[in-house]
Amino acid sequence: MPRNAQWRLAARPQGLFKPTDFAWHQEDTPPLGEGQVLVRVVLLSLDPTNRGWAAGDTYMPAVPIGEVMRGFAVGRVVESRDPGFTAGDAVSGLLGWQRYAVTPARSLRRLPDVGLPLEAHLGLLGHIGLTAWVGLVEVGRPQPGETLAVSAAAGGVGSLVGQIGKALGLRVVGVAGSEEKCRFVTEELGFDAAVNYKKTIVRAGLRRACPEGIDVYFDNVGGPTLEAALALLRHHGRIVLCGLISQYTVAGAVPGPSNLANLLVRRGRMEGFIVSDHADKTAQATADLLRWHREGRLKYRLDVVEGLEDAPVAVNRLFEGTNVGKLVVRVAAE
Amino acid sequence: MPRNAQWRLAARPQGLFKPTDFAWHQEDTPPLGEGQVLVRVVLLSLDPTNRGWAAGDTYMPAVPIGEVMRGFAVGRVVESRDPGFTAGDAVSGLLGWQRYAVTPARSLRRLPDVGLPLEAHLGLLGHIGLTAWVGLVEVGRPQPGETLAVSAAAGGVGSLVGQIGKALGLRVVGVAGSEEKCRFVTEELGFDAAVNYKKTIVRAGLRRACPEGIDVYFDNVGGPTLEAALALLRHHGRIVLCGLISQYTVAGAVPGPSNLANLLVRRGRMEGFIVSDHADKTAQATADLLRWHREGRLKYRLDVVEGLEDAPVAVNRLFEGTNVGKLVVRVAAE
Repeated sequence: MPRNAQWRLAARPQGLFKPTDFAWHQEDTPPLGEGQVLVRVVLLSLDPTNRGWAAGDTYMPAVPIGEVMRGFAVGRVVESRDPGFTAGDAVSGLLGWQRYAVTPARSLRRLPDVGLPLEAHLGLLGHIGLTAWVGLVEVGRPQPGETLAVSAAAGGVGSLVGQIGKALGLRVVGVAGSEEKCRFVTEELGFDAAVNYKKTIVRAGLRRACPEGIDVYFDNVGGPTLEAALALLRHHGRIVLCGLISQYTVAGAVPGPSNLANLLVRRGRMEGFIVSDHADKTAQATADLLRWHREGRLKYRLDVVEGLEDAPVAVNRLFEGTNVGKLVVRVAAE
Repeated sequence: MPRNAQWRLAARPQGLFKPTDFAWHQEDTPPLGEGQVLVRVVLLSLDPTNRGWAAGDTYMPAVPIGEVMRGFAVGRVVESRDPGFTAGDAVSGLLGWQRYAVTPARSLRRLPDVGLPLEAHLGLLGHIGLTAWVGLVEVGRPQPGETLAVSAAAGGVGSLVGQIGKALGLRVVGVAGSEEKCRFVTEELGFDAAVNYKKTIVRAGLRRACPEGIDVYFDNVGGPTLEAALALLRHHGRIVLCGLISQYTVAGAVPGPSNLANLLVRRGRMEGFIVSDHADKTAQATADLLRWHREGRLKYRLDVVEGLEDAPVAVNRLFEGTNVGKLVVRVAAE
């Protein structure tokens, strides 16, 4: 069996991750039991929710101290003791921050052959694409002609949300934290406008970009951007809570938006969702995403970190806002 | 034409209403124009939303300074120059804080003859009953067996919400601000439990009363009670925003709940509504309310202030929390 290397969680993070929150561990992979599969991890997804998993119980139990850090990844089957998988199969699942995963077959998903490279299953399909599609279509329920605002607009989910919005006939405004990101979403992805919240007061920038207000706000960040969107929310507007990244590394209680009363006065709806509750929509979402991608209306960009060793440092780029596109770690050549 | 007396808005309120925010004005009622109706106001409803109407633009334009204070009321037609109404008809509408209203016929609603006294159209039916029914049934969408918490539980809307909840097979917990109110909702209205937020930390009290958490929270108050409900919200829980009375008389911005992240993690929904958006549900709501009332499952209590002169002082009881039941002013004998 191949030699494995993995990052194990060594301490609960306070603020940003510190290198000492993880411990590097090497061991031989154990022999497979009945129903188990050995997977070589190819690309590891780094997601804002990783910090929640490390910090404590959220919508999933916390990663126990001393265990392999939880992470979503795509890889190739090396060996299988389950009739459902054979060597060479492309799979995805919570494979963890490691080179090889030994996992029960039932926790794996075989990736459909859609004629796209493995990376498309992290950048376009998979949990990222499903999160964007479910959050916007199912929770946001936009109507053509409405105005959509999305924060973390150049990130993995946000960049898809805005493009799906354009495909659905919406006017789309992104909020992002650099001129490069703003150019990326307007020039490459076709957003109608973008607000650089590091250069402009976000409320003023959104007001200029959305003169008639916001019908749907897809929130990945919380904080002042959420407050600005509430200020500009139109009657019967919807706020889709997908993430609150501005709060994840802050210690203590974070005050909520001071203008929550707008949700009442404007008859608005604010709703949280977790993509795993919507697995029944996978087929429909995947079909839409692939069709739009083939029509050239849905692009994705990966921000690739080379080598598993750098994962504990690279993950902080999500909270520092220095990634453009979906942040992934290349663990092995495909 | 009869002599009229009215309270006109003299100043925008800061904090609680002051007597000088209103000016008493007497004049003869003008002769009726074509299509107008003269109504003798019998009972005037005092509602938390009155303060919003006086303070500025909300979901309706602010009452202009110098105009009759806006108020919902029931009364009797005295004279009509519209074919749709005749003297003696019982009607409701935004008749204002005055003894007589001269108003276009289209702004009046003829009260159906349901064999109940006129006061039932303020305490059980009308905007109060429709608010309770729409908010709980349409927005909250409860399932039998779920736990409902409602704040301002002894007030006009809250007391109906809890009883509708019992009629729908829910476990119902009220939050109110005195032992008298808590006894009223448990002993007279059949709530399963009540929390006196002036005697108990509301989060601790709700936790004891809702050991399995809250599925639907009907919010009339905002503030710490909303925060407590978010803390106890079950997965896929719903928060119905009907009012934020704890904030109406506070100057400046009010911080939102510090645990809004729970809405995301627990996949919750928080939604505001205004009853006037749901006029199409009036017939269904009225039928339900009347049936439950006849079956003895839906009681109402009025807290009656005698005389229009006292309205500017009495309205503050809503914000001080000293009313038990629906607060109304008897303007004239029926």
